[in-house]
Amino acid sequence: MTDKLICIAVIGGSRVSPQVADIAEEVGREIARRGAVLVCGGLGGVMEAACRGAALEGGLTVGILPGNDRRDANPYVKLPIITGLGSARNVAIVKSAHAVIAVDGSYGTLSEIGHALQHGIPVIGLNTWSLSRDGAADSGIIPAESAAEAVRTAMSLVEDRL
Amino acid sequence: MTDKLICIAVIGGSRVSPQVADIAEEVGREIARRGAVLVCGGLGGVMEAACRGAALEGGLTVGILPGNDRRDANPYVKLPIITGLGSARNVAIVKSAHAVIAVDGSYGTLSEIGHALQHGIPVIGLNTWSLSRDGAADSGIIPAESAAEAVRTAMSLVEDRL
Amino acid sequence: MTDKLICIAVIGGSRVSPQVADIAEEVGREIARRGAVLVCGGLGGVMEAACRGAALEGGLTVGILPGNDRRDANPYVKLPIITGLGSARNVAIVKSAHAVIAVDGSYGTLSEIGHALQHGIPVIGLNTWSLSRDGAADSGIIPAESAAEAVRTAMSLVEDRL
Amino acid sequence: MTDKLICIAVIGGSRVSPQVADIAEEVGREIARRGAVLVCGGLGGVMEAACRGAALEGGLTVGILPGNDRRDANPYVKLPIITGLGSARNVAIVKSAHAVIAVDGSYGTLSEIGHALQHGIPVIGLNTWSLSRDGAADSGIIPAESAAEAVRTAMSLVEDRL
Repeated sequence: MTDKLICIAVIGGSRVSPQVADIAEEVGREIARRGAVLVCGGLGGVMEAACRGAALEGGLTVGILPGNDRRDANPYVKLPIITGLGSARNVAIVKSAHAVIAVDGSYGTLSEIGHALQHGIPVIGLNTWSLSRDGAADSGIIPAESAAEAVRTAMSLVEDRL
Repeated sequence: MTDKLICIAVIGGSRVSPQVADIAEEVGREIARRGAVLVCGGLGGVMEAACRGAALEGGLTVGILPGNDRRDANPYVKLPIITGLGSARNVAIVKSAHAVIAVDGSYGTLSEIGHALQHGIPVIGLNTWSLSRDGAADSGIIPAESAAEAVRTAMSLVEDRL
Repeated sequence: MTDKLICIAVIGGSRVSPQVADIAEEVGREIARRGAVLVCGGLGGVMEAACRGAALEGGLTVGILPGNDRRDANPYVKLPIITGLGSARNVAIVKSAHAVIAVDGSYGTLSEIGHALQHGIPVIGLNTWSLSRDGAADSGIIPAESAAEAVRTAMSLVEDRL
Repeated sequence: MTDKLICIAVIGGSRVSPQVADIAEEVGREIARRGAVLVCGGLGGVMEAACRGAALEGGLTVGILPGNDRRDANPYVKLPIITGLGSARNVAIVKSAHAVIAVDGSYGTLSEIGHALQHGIPVIGLNTWSLSRDGAADSGIIPAESAAEAVRTAMSLVEDRL
């Protein structure tokens, strides 16, 4: 019997400001410090910054790639999963995670938030989308103020579910 | 050389109020009246109501199903596409459409809105999600007040792109 | 209640000899003559020849495309389904069909034969792969000698299942 | 910069004889001894036996699951990738690997062999399918006589490609 690894997905845009990259890197560092695996889309921007953070702490980084070429993975992805599925791979990113942390991000990130919430996977948001229906805010995304808080929240939710 | 058919996707929840079903049915009717193909997820709720409307007008209805069984399709789907892809089939629904009309809907619909906008496919919204970033409304979803307006907007955007 | 359409998939390589193209075109013609929908991968070679045959007989042709661009579809595809899934779209081609006709074909066709047989969808073969295990021929693929025989066999199997 | 891990996929049926399970377990052991990651479909039979072998040698085991539930993974999968894609996940299994070892297996395995060969990923076969076209054997699958030979061949092909 092999203990399953805890997986936290980090989602966000492939182009980011230096400030957002710093936040994503710190998210990656915190995930690795807590012994969890970082799962992401494997490309640049938030994904690369988070992988860099996790790799610097010696963590395992998984990049679930949309294309057919493992060389598309950013340099900090240790385990590329090659799907060739295009944006349908977004589904596998969030489903593979015990919790999802959204950092910034555009419409691709929005699709991932939708898939995660549909499947009951907790989403913690850092500087990302706000959702509302009929004028009322939707409470699906759990807001966090810092990388440390986001990862702490994610890990506590995972522990509740194990 | 065969003329390609114009495809309009209708997305929305699988459980709906009678009022929402009426709107969705009218959207389906309008799509068929204008000679376009209705593409949807093939299941119940908004999907079934829209298919019923289109079928009553003699239109072609395509249901891109998440599961493996064509009997999952609602009774008004004429052409079931069976994917077995689960929610990854959401991507194929919106990519196959020239424009997308979102009626009501929950997180699955949100994922479809994200995929559509990421790929530059116009989304017209009827009583659906509102999106904002950093306190500012996102203008990705084009609001409509009625089924007729939604389909008119969709068709005019398609014609601009042909 | 809407009658579902009968769908027959035609699979085979994207580059073919003139002789193979003639067979595929005749398969497409026969499918349309019998009132069934032709489903295929939407590209060239066997797919294009089969679509041409079906279109010349006034049939409906569905192309389930691997990429993101409807312009990848051959000129005889009337309804392109755009997936962006790469070769994972092979699964949707065969699952959407009541029966599959394999004409010639290479490794992509082999993957489709595997998916079809795994899901219990009949496969009729024209000049295609032979399979064996432990020195014994596998009887999964039903051989046919002509386009007409292949479509006749496919349709009789479909009728048995309706 | 993070060194990418070498990934070897083991494919084969979910129900197997004790003899086949022994071979698959030894394949898993050899993969782990050589420091490569074992990628598989995460379920029972050949997949479970191979994961058990790799886990007993302390290797990393990745199970790319067809369903939505990580509890579907066999007890020796350390990192479950949850796709919900059904058999379309077969594509991700083989694309994620530098080389594929097929042990026994039925039609699902045949689909994976097709996808791998289509994408130029080497396939080594142990007691698996034989393919032929027009009466001539197809040379796509590289035969091996033992688990050790299969893994040795796989690793030497990977090294040629790095």
